[in-house]
Amino acid sequence: MNMTFTARATSAARTAAAPIAPVAPSHAVLRPLGLDEVTIRGGFWGERQRVNGTATLAHIAGWLEREGWIANFDLAASGALPEGRRGREFSDSEVYKYLEAVAWEIGRLSAADDAAGAGAAGSADAIAGLDARFRAVVARVAAAQEPDGYLNTRFGRPGQEPRWENLESGHELYNLGHLFQAAVARVRTRPDADDGLIDIARRAADLVCEVFGDDGIQSMCGHAEIELGLVELSRVTGDERYLRQAQLFIERHGTGVLPDIEFGRSYYQDDIPVREADVLRGHAVRANYLAAGAVDLAVETRDTELLGALERQWTNTVARRTYVTGGQGSHHQDEAFGDDFELPSDRAYSETCAGVASIMFSWRMLLAEGESRYADLIERTLFNVVATSPSAEGTSFYYANTLHQRRPAEHASADEVSPRASSSLRAPWFEVSCCPPNVARTFASLAAYLATADAGGVQLHQYAPASIRTTLDGGGEIALEVETAYPAEGSVRVRVLTDAAVPWTLSLRVPAWAAGAQVAVRDAAGAVVPEASAALEPGYARVTRAFAAGERVELDLPIAPRFTSPDPRIDAVRGCLVVERGPEVFALESVDLAEAGITATNVADILLDAAVPPREADGRVLVAVRERHPGIGSWPYGDEVDAAQAEASVHEVALVPYHEWAQRGPSTMRVWLPA
Amino acid sequence: MNMTFTARATSAARTAAAPIAPVAPSHAVLRPLGLDEVTIRGGFWGERQRVNGTATLAHIAGWLEREGWIANFDLAASGALPEGRRGREFSDSEVYKYLEAVAWEIGRLSAADDAAGAGAAGSADAIAGLDARFRAVVARVAAAQEPDGYLNTRFGRPGQEPRWENLESGHELYNLGHLFQAAVARVRTRPDADDGLIDIARRAADLVCEVFGDDGIQSMCGHAEIELGLVELSRVTGDERYLRQAQLFIERHGTGVLPDIEFGRSYYQDDIPVREADVLRGHAVRANYLAAGAVDLAVETRDTELLGALERQWTNTVARRTYVTGGQGSHHQDEAFGDDFELPSDRAYSETCAGVASIMFSWRMLLAEGESRYADLIERTLFNVVATSPSAEGTSFYYANTLHQRRPAEHASADEVSPRASSSLRAPWFEVSCCPPNVARTFASLAAYLATADAGGVQLHQYAPASIRTTLDGGGEIALEVETAYPAEGSVRVRVLTDAAVPWTLSLRVPAWAAGAQVAVRDAAGAVVPEASAALEPGYARVTRAFAAGERVELDLPIAPRFTSPDPRIDAVRGCLVVERGPEVFALESVDLAEAGITATNVADILLDAAVPPREADGRVLVAVRERHPGIGSWPYGDEVDAAQAEASVHEVALVPYHEWAQRGPSTMRVWLPA
Repeated sequence: MNMTFTARATSAARTAAAPIAPVAPSHAVLRPLGLDEVTIRGGFWGERQRVNGTATLAHIAGWLEREGWIANFDLAASGALPEGRRGREFSDSEVYKYLEAVAWEIGRLSAADDAAGAGAAGSADAIAGLDARFRAVVARVAAAQEPDGYLNTRFGRPGQEPRWENLESGHELYNLGHLFQAAVARVRTRPDADDGLIDIARRAADLVCEVFGDDGIQSMCGHAEIELGLVELSRVTGDERYLRQAQLFIERHGTGVLPDIEFGRSYYQDDIPVREADVLRGHAVRANYLAAGAVDLAVETRDTELLGALERQWTNTVARRTYVTGGQGSHHQDEAFGDDFELPSDRAYSETCAGVASIMFSWRMLLAEGESRYADLIERTLFNVVATSPSAEGTSFYYANTLHQRRPAEHASADEVSPRASSSLRAPWFEVSCCPPNVARTFASLAAYLATADAGGVQLHQYAPASIRTTLDGGGEIALEVETAYPAEGSVRVRVLTDAAVPWTLSLRVPAWAAGAQVAVRDAAGAVVPEASAALEPGYARVTRAFAAGERVELDLPIAPRFTSPDPRIDAVRGCLVVERGPEVFALESVDLAEAGITATNVADILLDAAVPPREADGRVLVAVRERHPGIGSWPYGDEVDAAQAEASVHEVALVPYHEWAQRGPSTMRVWLPA
Repeated sequence: MNMTFTARATSAARTAAAPIAPVAPSHAVLRPLGLDEVTIRGGFWGERQRVNGTATLAHIAGWLEREGWIANFDLAASGALPEGRRGREFSDSEVYKYLEAVAWEIGRLSAADDAAGAGAAGSADAIAGLDARFRAVVARVAAAQEPDGYLNTRFGRPGQEPRWENLESGHELYNLGHLFQAAVARVRTRPDADDGLIDIARRAADLVCEVFGDDGIQSMCGHAEIELGLVELSRVTGDERYLRQAQLFIERHGTGVLPDIEFGRSYYQDDIPVREADVLRGHAVRANYLAAGAVDLAVETRDTELLGALERQWTNTVARRTYVTGGQGSHHQDEAFGDDFELPSDRAYSETCAGVASIMFSWRMLLAEGESRYADLIERTLFNVVATSPSAEGTSFYYANTLHQRRPAEHASADEVSPRASSSLRAPWFEVSCCPPNVARTFASLAAYLATADAGGVQLHQYAPASIRTTLDGGGEIALEVETAYPAEGSVRVRVLTDAAVPWTLSLRVPAWAAGAQVAVRDAAGAVVPEASAALEPGYARVTRAFAAGERVELDLPIAPRFTSPDPRIDAVRGCLVVERGPEVFALESVDLAEAGITATNVADILLDAAVPPREADGRVLVAVRERHPGIGSWPYGDEVDAAQAEASVHEVALVPYHEWAQRGPSTMRVWLPA
């Protein structure tokens, strides 16, 4: 398969062979349904997609211009560099991630238009505007590319550091990885586009293969990312050299090619070969990007040993090094995983980009192996990390996502770049601003993470109001309409719009927390079909049937609020409980204390009454708590420090979904409540 | 008073006016007894002083040469810079701290010789050797000083960054602060020395006053230190300009003169004026150095408001932001204090230098106010932070002092510079190697922190076998011999060697943990003097008496091992207890598990049986524990994670003093034991 073939493929063939989606394995247990096959229609994620498309993308474009990160390409083209260059060594990548997000957004809007009938969604103007902006930025990037394919505004010119000599921290290859992902997104969503981004990417990739190939520099980038970009570039172009280069980079990890540094070689996963490691470690974004690329490689090369190593790493990382929110990364210092069970709430780094990267790793594992646990973690991370990052307006973002805010959270200026990416601060832009465009590209392509197909049917992994239309590998066309107010409600109704001649299987994920879920099948007249209806254990509820148009599958997930305990080895939250409701983690925010008649103004002074289960009333989740007022003694250790008893009276206080916190003024917050 | 006067003062006048000690306030509640007045004779601290003098100083000198940090001065003198310069921007300061340590060591050995009778200690050769090395290094430093007094190997030459333009991170003034402290130590220990270090310091200080004075650059150094150096320089020279300059630097803090950075201006205490702040915050070493300098300023200017602010900051910092070891600093990222009660064991930074700096702050408060709580914290920090840093051999050092080691601690190469100052690693030298010389100068001058005098008598703050000889302000000569095996034993015997014509008061500190201590006074015949003997509450046991030679005061401190609880707001150690014995904090190390018949090899799998009090047997501290073996589940949150029960059988396992940990091979360790 080559690029031309892909680009000219008919719609049907393209659907089967290369979905309009960020990940398109040439073979896998599950085939992702792309943006032309799944359209989110409102609800929790639809609202976020709307805000992303109408506010966030323009916000990002504005800051990229304002900070000069796009203008760096202009300076490169005019030979003005290095003077005047602005931004860090990875600023080029933010431009590429923005391009990727815009490409997906164009695809998303176009698909919605297609699904609704031409022009019905009224988004033709929006699409045209985005496309013009996309082309304009691509033209500026193109002008900066050097004749041999090199593309980076920070290295290689007189007065700049030379090319490829600071691989451990220069991010040159990392930047290109994001370029490749942007080009792939463009080809998949606009195969007929003539903006040339794919050619820019190929020229850069060809140079990389030449410089870093079997006989080239035997090293790699300190920040993994190019690996998965190269595999996808190989997938859309059919050029096996890119896959080979990805393999070389992946297998150089763990051989000590990069220097030992303060954080150790684990920081960039150069401590242990990928196929030998047992758990993710080091910088959490790098670790997950590398793992994601390695799954891509394992799938393309049918390397079951490598895939097994990644499954093992995923399993151990989730069991020992992941926050209840799905967040990963316990260290601010090196943005890294901690040791097993080292999961401090107050110093949770849980970088938004690590959440995105974790989803990328899990999604690839899900496609490769088809197990619900991967989709479970994706759901948890989407609701409690990725959705937490942006404000409701989509114009400020958390970079780090703490689980415990001890002092009233700062609020950033809406008009200034924040130097404090790592603090508990939603800010419009950061000096290191990887997270906003990472959220944007995820939201714009989110429909591609909802559902998959295999020869036997369709699998729904994430629940949102959605239209799904696909053709099974066996040839049968299937159309579904998903109706749900999830996660506000636990009811998911899937209407089948197509008649099937032969039975096929509709699989609905039952999250691990949803033991006792119910599934019911109703015929077109609304009558329950008893033999297909049952109570369910977590995993997938599978209904196999020659569905007739008008039939419905109804899944009911028990989403009553619940207490959850931590493993006793997680020292940071010993003796605490967290409240969850469905896939959402809840938090206590100090702004809710007064309404409950509590005089304390800091969540530090609140004790949970664990004997009273959390309950729901008027759409709010309530828990019983007591106040305590320990004074400041002279020394916080000794026999007397326990004397600070809680008051007798119990108050019922409302919690908020964690992803909503810090949107009502400065507050203290905690997810884990001491019992 | 001017330098000449100080230098020519007779021994007696010098004793009264300017003790041979790191801190010599012109007035204060307590007057420190200097190295000529207090000699430590063996015991816990005597052994550390011996190792420091015989191994550590030579070790440091060797690494300073090997890394080229002294040679930088040679390069500066020969005009060869910037090429060939090695080390970070603060490497000059390590040379100065080394000089300070050597100056105190010369003073210590000379005093021991004097006390024992000339030459009796056989240290004349050692003193001569140290003095020659001191002079040789001073000569190399002197050669690098520029005609206008500027002295720094990193700035100001063609090809280097210009002087004074990178105040926030250049450490230029910080380096000079350490130069001043070294010069002061030299003047106090060798007032007749003609090496010229004091003149080097004065020329540099004069330049600083000119450049940064009332009409000069209205800024300050990002790393406090010069402030206290300037006050001491003012004290030994009598030059009030240095005091004024210290005042300007101190009062510029908190006015936003330095740029806002990722860590916020609190990082360098430029967020809140010193006299307005309520608690220490930001970089823990900077915060404590600044506070120490501010106490010096407050004392010299009789600024009671400022002193009150510092007392408040000390109180709140100790009550909310200090580890049970006395360690300070919860963040690796910015080496900073965390929020109140944010004291994670596993991410304790507790930098050795922050311990040293905290002692400097507390000691100045103790001299200014005379309260035992300051001496309590000094003792805790000396035993559990400063003594923890060096190995028994004195040739490798902790930079950070974790309270919980989850993976077997790494061991550094004895022959390589470690890039990982912030990890749990005793290493011979670091790329940032502030801690080894900071420990060395503290140990060399430690006798000066043991005792003080006032008009009414002598106060003993720290217990060690020691000879004390001083003259009270009123004129009476007092000689004491302290005999003790503290902290191994709780008995302290103070023999009075001099007859007094009038009553004077001997004050012995009773640590806060030592409620129920006993004091007894015996006459020369050994009979108890009933009216002067009693049980004591913490504070100072004060015995006022016209002591006769041969009389003894006997203090018995209850040092049986004890459980200590944490304040319930310290989330990181909720549900845990620590074992303390006297001033020492104890730790469980995995290397001790097997001997107790425990099959677990990691301290993570050990639960304390809190119903069984700790006990002592054969000189070891023992606690009762149970094993647990929780498997690795798929997700560490939920109802089932608590199912991992401890085994029924109880094992008695030995703990080690925290300062001894990691000296018997790789091990996991925890100070706080889950109960």
